[in-house]
Amino acid sequence: MNVFIVYAHPEPRSLNGALKDLAVETLTGLGHTVEVSDLYAMGWKAQADGADFLDRADPGRLSYARESGHAFAAGTQTPDVTAEQEKLLWSDAVILQFPLWWFSMPAILKGWVDRVYAYGFAYGVGQHEGERWGDRYGEGKLAGRRALLSVTMGGRAPHYSTRGVNGRLDDVLFPIQHGILFYPGMAVLPPHTVFQANHLPDDRWQEIAESWRARLRGLFDEAPIPYRRQNAGHYDTRQVLKPGLGTGEGGTRIHLLQPGEPSERPIGAQHQRADRHQ
Amino acid sequence: MNVFIVYAHPEPRSLNGALKDLAVETLTGLGHTVEVSDLYAMGWKAQADGADFLDRADPGRLSYARESGHAFAAGTQTPDVTAEQEKLLWSDAVILQFPLWWFSMPAILKGWVDRVYAYGFAYGVGQHEGERWGDRYGEGKLAGRRALLSVTMGGRAPHYSTRGVNGRLDDVLFPIQHGILFYPGMAVLPPHTVFQANHLPDDRWQEIAESWRARLRGLFDEAPIPYRRQNAGHYDTRQVLKPGLGTGEGGTRIHLLQPGEPSERPIGAQHQRADRHQ
Repeated sequence: MNVFIVYAHPEPRSLNGALKDLAVETLTGLGHTVEVSDLYAMGWKAQADGADFLDRADPGRLSYARESGHAFAAGTQTPDVTAEQEKLLWSDAVILQFPLWWFSMPAILKGWVDRVYAYGFAYGVGQHEGERWGDRYGEGKLAGRRALLSVTMGGRAPHYSTRGVNGRLDDVLFPIQHGILFYPGMAVLPPHTVFQANHLPDDRWQEIAESWRARLRGLFDEAPIPYRRQNAGHYDTRQVLKPGLGTGEGGTRIHLLQPGEPSERPIGAQHQRADRHQ
Repeated sequence: MNVFIVYAHPEPRSLNGALKDLAVETLTGLGHTVEVSDLYAMGWKAQADGADFLDRADPGRLSYARESGHAFAAGTQTPDVTAEQEKLLWSDAVILQFPLWWFSMPAILKGWVDRVYAYGFAYGVGQHEGERWGDRYGEGKLAGRRALLSVTMGGRAPHYSTRGVNGRLDDVLFPIQHGILFYPGMAVLPPHTVFQANHLPDDRWQEIAESWRARLRGLFDEAPIPYRRQNAGHYDTRQVLKPGLGTGEGGTRIHLLQPGEPSERPIGAQHQRADRHQ
């Protein structure tokens, strides 16, 4: 299988660098083909701006979404963006390797999302009218792929626990896991985490490495987070969860399928695996 | 009072640009002093890397947190970072004006946070041992200030409602409002929002402008979001919310004070207003 690692850390000798190297070694050893985008080494342009479009639909006033759609359709995106989109389409699984900075991605990785996730590629896909509001949340051009966050954190695990002061980890990561990975159709695995990453005694590395290898071995077998699909019958025409679903849960957890609930509708097969060859 | 606006949009003629201009005009008219950091116009460096430190503690291996602490203490931060920190310390209120891209800030603004929020300035402040884990979440160097997000979104309001498919807005913004604004001590007002911002008929502007002016008039009067303070008795020594608090709520809402709960302890006055002059 093809695995695409997007890696965002400025120091090759960092824990993040070591986890990225270990992933390449482990996945290659398992017979997979691995591609890495090392954003710092590539000098990735983080800020999204008018220079991202080689031929502007409206040179007078920049609407990023409009120009993104125009450039994606017309083939006038910058080559760095096109190359990343091709790696995403080539992949069977995507791993994002980064340190959690201020409860989100480093800016350089956010800029990868802002620029690579073009209109017509990651959003603005499919019909937006009547009962449908796009092929998103479980459908979209990246359907059929798996996605996994591998995140290091300076904080301690209890700070991110269900009642921890930072917010529980699945809430903190919801904008990324649900809003960036599941949105264009990927199946999202539970995150892989290393806490207290700034104070790592050498003897913790073996344990960290073994735990990461175990996750990598399960990359194509683990059950994804059971996020509800937008267009599978659980949301109404305003894209609001229907009554009777998600009862007994609050916050982001209402968007997870729960035992005993009515099944989701199957989504047309053309929105699944076939999409990746478009 | 002093108001600091951090503005992140690449197009001056955008809705975000208009909201920023209106804020300057309205706040100035109310007698406040306003400072704007227009990140795109400034060519703000988004990516956090080794070039941020003029004199490295360890030139061989970059730990961003360690070098940040060293540079902040030694006065060897880059001038662009120092200037933004001074604006924060000068301010009585901070407004972040940006479009919500992929359920978070544009990369250029995230890079402002990553770089300006130095170790010793926004984190790593105060005692980290025993019962205390730093002056954070309601305490810190930015205590005594108010903070307000002004956010535009392409999506529709129901998509961000309590049961909306995108996640409810206070969950989506929790990593920013709680994790970036409340963390270093600021009191956070409810966000100001414009939905469906990519499809604005001209006649919506008057309504949008009036609603924004009303929020700006209340900037120093509105009640902040009642986030619990970390060091005020509601969290235990692992920084986990104590039993019996936040009952009947789930997810991020357990971190809001609720009617009928035991009061928080007062926090020493030295952690409040006085801190801003350090």
